[in-house]
Amino acid sequence: MNDNLDPLFKPKSVALIGASVKELSIGNVIIKNLLHYNFRGPVYPINPKVDEIRGLKAYPSVLDVPGEVDLAHIVIPPPFVPGEVENCGKKGVKAIIVNTAGFKEMGAEGQALEEDFLSRARKYGIRVVGPNCQGIINSDPEFNAYCNFTFTYPKPGHISVVAQSGGVGAVLMQAFYDMGIGQRMYASNGNGSDVSITEILSYYGKDEETRAIVLYAESIENPKEFISIARQVTTRKPVLAITAGRTDKGAEASRSHIGGLAGSISMDLIYKKAGILTFRSQEDLCHAAVALSSQPVPKGNRVGIITNTGGPSVIAIDELVSCGLEIPPLSEKAAEKLHGTMLESASVRNPLDVVATAGPAHFKSALEVMMQEPQFDSIYINFVTPPFVDCENVAREIAAAAKAGTKPIVCNYMTDKEKWGGTSKILKDGEIPCFDFAETAARALHSLVRYNGIRSAEAGCVRNFTDVNKDTVRSILGNASSQNREVLSATEVYGILEAYHVPVASWKVAGNLQEALAAAEGIGFPVVIKADSEQIIHKSDVGGVAVNIQNAGEATMVMETMIRNLGAGIRFFVQKFLPKGRELIIGAKAVEGVGHIIGFGLGGIFVEVLKDIVFSISPVSDTEAISMIHSVKATPLIHGFRGEKGISIEKTSEIIQRISMLVNDFPVIRELDLNPLFAIGDEIHVVDARIIL
Amino acid sequence: MNDNLDPLFKPKSVALIGASVKELSIGNVIIKNLLHYNFRGPVYPINPKVDEIRGLKAYPSVLDVPGEVDLAHIVIPPPFVPGEVENCGKKGVKAIIVNTAGFKEMGAEGQALEEDFLSRARKYGIRVVGPNCQGIINSDPEFNAYCNFTFTYPKPGHISVVAQSGGVGAVLMQAFYDMGIGQRMYASNGNGSDVSITEILSYYGKDEETRAIVLYAESIENPKEFISIARQVTTRKPVLAITAGRTDKGAEASRSHIGGLAGSISMDLIYKKAGILTFRSQEDLCHAAVALSSQPVPKGNRVGIITNTGGPSVIAIDELVSCGLEIPPLSEKAAEKLHGTMLESASVRNPLDVVATAGPAHFKSALEVMMQEPQFDSIYINFVTPPFVDCENVAREIAAAAKAGTKPIVCNYMTDKEKWGGTSKILKDGEIPCFDFAETAARALHSLVRYNGIRSAEAGCVRNFTDVNKDTVRSILGNASSQNREVLSATEVYGILEAYHVPVASWKVAGNLQEALAAAEGIGFPVVIKADSEQIIHKSDVGGVAVNIQNAGEATMVMETMIRNLGAGIRFFVQKFLPKGRELIIGAKAVEGVGHIIGFGLGGIFVEVLKDIVFSISPVSDTEAISMIHSVKATPLIHGFRGEKGISIEKTSEIIQRISMLVNDFPVIRELDLNPLFAIGDEIHVVDARIIL
Repeated sequence: MNDNLDPLFKPKSVALIGASVKELSIGNVIIKNLLHYNFRGPVYPINPKVDEIRGLKAYPSVLDVPGEVDLAHIVIPPPFVPGEVENCGKKGVKAIIVNTAGFKEMGAEGQALEEDFLSRARKYGIRVVGPNCQGIINSDPEFNAYCNFTFTYPKPGHISVVAQSGGVGAVLMQAFYDMGIGQRMYASNGNGSDVSITEILSYYGKDEETRAIVLYAESIENPKEFISIARQVTTRKPVLAITAGRTDKGAEASRSHIGGLAGSISMDLIYKKAGILTFRSQEDLCHAAVALSSQPVPKGNRVGIITNTGGPSVIAIDELVSCGLEIPPLSEKAAEKLHGTMLESASVRNPLDVVATAGPAHFKSALEVMMQEPQFDSIYINFVTPPFVDCENVAREIAAAAKAGTKPIVCNYMTDKEKWGGTSKILKDGEIPCFDFAETAARALHSLVRYNGIRSAEAGCVRNFTDVNKDTVRSILGNASSQNREVLSATEVYGILEAYHVPVASWKVAGNLQEALAAAEGIGFPVVIKADSEQIIHKSDVGGVAVNIQNAGEATMVMETMIRNLGAGIRFFVQKFLPKGRELIIGAKAVEGVGHIIGFGLGGIFVEVLKDIVFSISPVSDTEAISMIHSVKATPLIHGFRGEKGISIEKTSEIIQRISMLVNDFPVIRELDLNPLFAIGDEIHVVDARIIL
Repeated sequence: MNDNLDPLFKPKSVALIGASVKELSIGNVIIKNLLHYNFRGPVYPINPKVDEIRGLKAYPSVLDVPGEVDLAHIVIPPPFVPGEVENCGKKGVKAIIVNTAGFKEMGAEGQALEEDFLSRARKYGIRVVGPNCQGIINSDPEFNAYCNFTFTYPKPGHISVVAQSGGVGAVLMQAFYDMGIGQRMYASNGNGSDVSITEILSYYGKDEETRAIVLYAESIENPKEFISIARQVTTRKPVLAITAGRTDKGAEASRSHIGGLAGSISMDLIYKKAGILTFRSQEDLCHAAVALSSQPVPKGNRVGIITNTGGPSVIAIDELVSCGLEIPPLSEKAAEKLHGTMLESASVRNPLDVVATAGPAHFKSALEVMMQEPQFDSIYINFVTPPFVDCENVAREIAAAAKAGTKPIVCNYMTDKEKWGGTSKILKDGEIPCFDFAETAARALHSLVRYNGIRSAEAGCVRNFTDVNKDTVRSILGNASSQNREVLSATEVYGILEAYHVPVASWKVAGNLQEALAAAEGIGFPVVIKADSEQIIHKSDVGGVAVNIQNAGEATMVMETMIRNLGAGIRFFVQKFLPKGRELIIGAKAVEGVGHIIGFGLGGIFVEVLKDIVFSISPVSDTEAISMIHSVKATPLIHGFRGEKGISIEKTSEIIQRISMLVNDFPVIRELDLNPLFAIGDEIHVVDARIIL
């Protein structure tokens, strides 16, 4: 990780290797873009066959350029790229954007070429963006660097975009442009052979003018590093991402077009762990970025509403409430103040309907009261422009309130923006985030509240349980590995769980029927008896499990049957039979590059039918574990239902954390399932478990 | 209901009673709008104090107007409205828009004025829109009638809007305008004292140029009539509505600003019963209207995708799949064809990635193949405009394919629309529905598929069970009513259910302990014994219920206890105790104006914790009943789970229909609850029930 990307984003001169006179070619479009965007330094077209391109002197080779070259685009066919990178090295070029496609993504030959040019770049300390990419844009007027073949010319602003897919990046850039919102920096790094998304994210994180970062990725090269960097960035400024590939079909499409390892669940979990705000819709994301880059972060979820039209406030409230925001009533004091200043037909409550005929003075008073009311954390405004109202001065009041106040404002601004150009400009200059629809404004406000939740959440601590016995686990796992066994026996599984103080129902392994009877007496009936063997994974499928055995007679009978069916050599796993209680599932699964994912859910239909299970990336902190328990849909059952006792959140969360620590300590564990645990009140016990290496 | 609204929507002349020279006034803005919108007939400002307004001769009274007046706006204060309506009657005015507010919505005095002017209007056969409303717009070039004080001037098109809230109506109108989409007619009728939303809907339904109708209502005056009219309209053309007031807070806001009886559940059910497409977001609704008013209805849910960029197709597929659409593979034959025509780097499958360098010929071939492939019902296109491609001719191919083909096309068109103005115009002239984002295009396509579902759904039939005994029910209900009882006794409840052949567990009522013991022997142990009295509603709360009574001894004991606690005079309700099976709930509830709402759900946690219950407005047809059963989230449990038997869909659906018929036959029943029913395989029985009048 090297996040000093100044040579890339702040070039003082740019060369284009493969510049072309053909208008419909990348080698021409990039020069056009640099010139149109008013790049501050010299642009050097490199082409041995022509003297001039778009009025600029062309050079046969980058080595012939008279001045220094900070950044070079390469747009020539793959076989020629390594040689040109070598030339760039000799010339002292600091960064290269390889726009050309046809490398790793096309097979072995392309991969060899990619490795070739990369090793040459490394030799000279040159950073490379791409190949198979668009490039970068920096709207800083000191640079005006449009090193990209796209077509949207962003105005300076405070939102920076990094997108693995240039297609999506261009859509986002165009969306901000269409909304009249400026942008700071842009990058799409294609194959990402050198400069990574993580490095760009880190770079944006340190850029003072960047107030919000927008991210689109279908896969992350090194998720652990990404999470660690992104967590630092998200405490300083919001990072917003689209969760791509969230359906199987979508993930398939993403894999095939980018060659990465996608998978919606893990991307979603990675983002969550990193404190990144995720969105399903690009438009929602853009709206959120506009609000987050212009407004202060609210301290809570309580919204005061000012409206000059009825229906849109119904829609706004529906959306705000659906998002979990609160619409508290006005205080008596506030209501009293407003009764003195509002029009007679106004509705003095929250929502405060100032009515369509309200003018600047009414809005001013409404805004003052809402800003002062301690029970509101943010202000939502529906502002339609009635043709019989002085709308420009209403807009001035809104802008003034935003400037003076410390609470965020979002506005559903309903108008013909051309006819009300003056009003629109006042709101824009006041950096009021304006949206065409009540729902979209409400969702943008919700994103501010979500970011407050992320920023103010206690990170929690990853507990290090010192009572665990790592040696025991090491020895059990070592033994199984040495025998090339992937599935652990019940004895091994329960041994490991006990070593990590995960509460299991009392158990004993017996070598034969007589020993098993003695074990059952020792544990106390009723018991469960299972045939124990490394060969049998799904014991109940082969008649290897008998539950609720009440006495020695029953026990003898079932064990005799097992011996008949499974052979005389089997061992018996004898365990206390527990009353059912609430059925829980806790599990862990290794995921390439990420570590382990820890899952929690209620057993039975909740997991199997309702898919009500929550995941988190290990190591799971104490606050994360508790949040997992509260995040399942059937959460009322956890607190008790129909007279049943609830379960102990504390003990359940401790088991989640101990399992997280176990798989973190022993990454060789590929899968671990406690399924089910039985929990009633303070009692919680694993009654079946499975570990696979 | 009188849906001949021509005098309103097709006026040949308009008078404005209360015309004003003040620019920031409604009495001036309406004249400005009529003139700017190029109204085809004469406009008569009515104002006794001035000679001219906006260059038009003003008249002291509508009676002084020389020519005929089809439509009159009234914008003067409420007390003067009845007199002016009288004048309009004398003048022969056919329709009036009362823009003025301050009538019913302001209390008794206003209500009296409203009734006064309405009775005068009726006397003369004048239709009235409003009061407290915007008015209407008709973009038909034969009329160009902008009888409204809003500010958006729609171009002619095929979408008509009717909105109770003018605020929302104006937002929708502006949204279509901003998208460059024409509109046909517009109406916002405010208090709706005369011309109703239902009449306007019916009128739009018969207008040939209207291809899609957009509706916003927070309440419906006469839901039964509305449903019956809307069902006729929705078989001919799509009707789209926002569900407003879907949260409690939203419903509250809607009630207070419109004075209507809102309530999201019933509005949602009314729309569903009427075959109306509902939306949570105004923007999604607008996008859907654009697609539905320009594209044919697809025959199914299978989508072929053409894309010239990677990332957006991942996002599109995520959204399409989430919406339940299918992305089937290309046939071998189609793949073979495409391998011959696509660029080498293209990805020949579904999604078909023609790659960014694809030109008109590649799109043409892709479109031809997708149109011909019988396994696709619709075509989704991601079209970004690369600066190195002949985009105008790509657009021409898309427009040509849409014109020649019978499958709908929606397009995620990603560009700077000004720079690519030529391309944009070709797509617009070709009526290709274009959207900025992949998700929004995908959702618009989904709305086409949803409308196909509505149009092609079998209406089903409302079964008339001839085996029922209405006389018995009539007598039981009559008896209870004559005693002013609201809660029916168990005997009465089970008597009614049996009369309608709703299967109940065998039961008998006994006057005393001895009779009850005999009844239990007759029914056969185990039994349930309940204290039966009209005074006890929640029997189990007072120790009045004992279940799973195994023999006469137990029965004697529990009854003695009940006598001790509840008095010697109680009767006993004895019923067969059934094994539990799957717990179901079926219920009915009277809703003002709507009739009854019928509910179905799984019992216990499913209803109480997960709120997994489905409602439908009575009368429930056979197909609706089956659809209700399949609509609960826990539907896998209905088909059986973990070895348990499923339940009989046929028998369950029959009970739903019989209950629907019962409450339809006897609307005096306010609430009916079968809670629970126990169902295993073909066996299904009511084990507890309640009826309230």
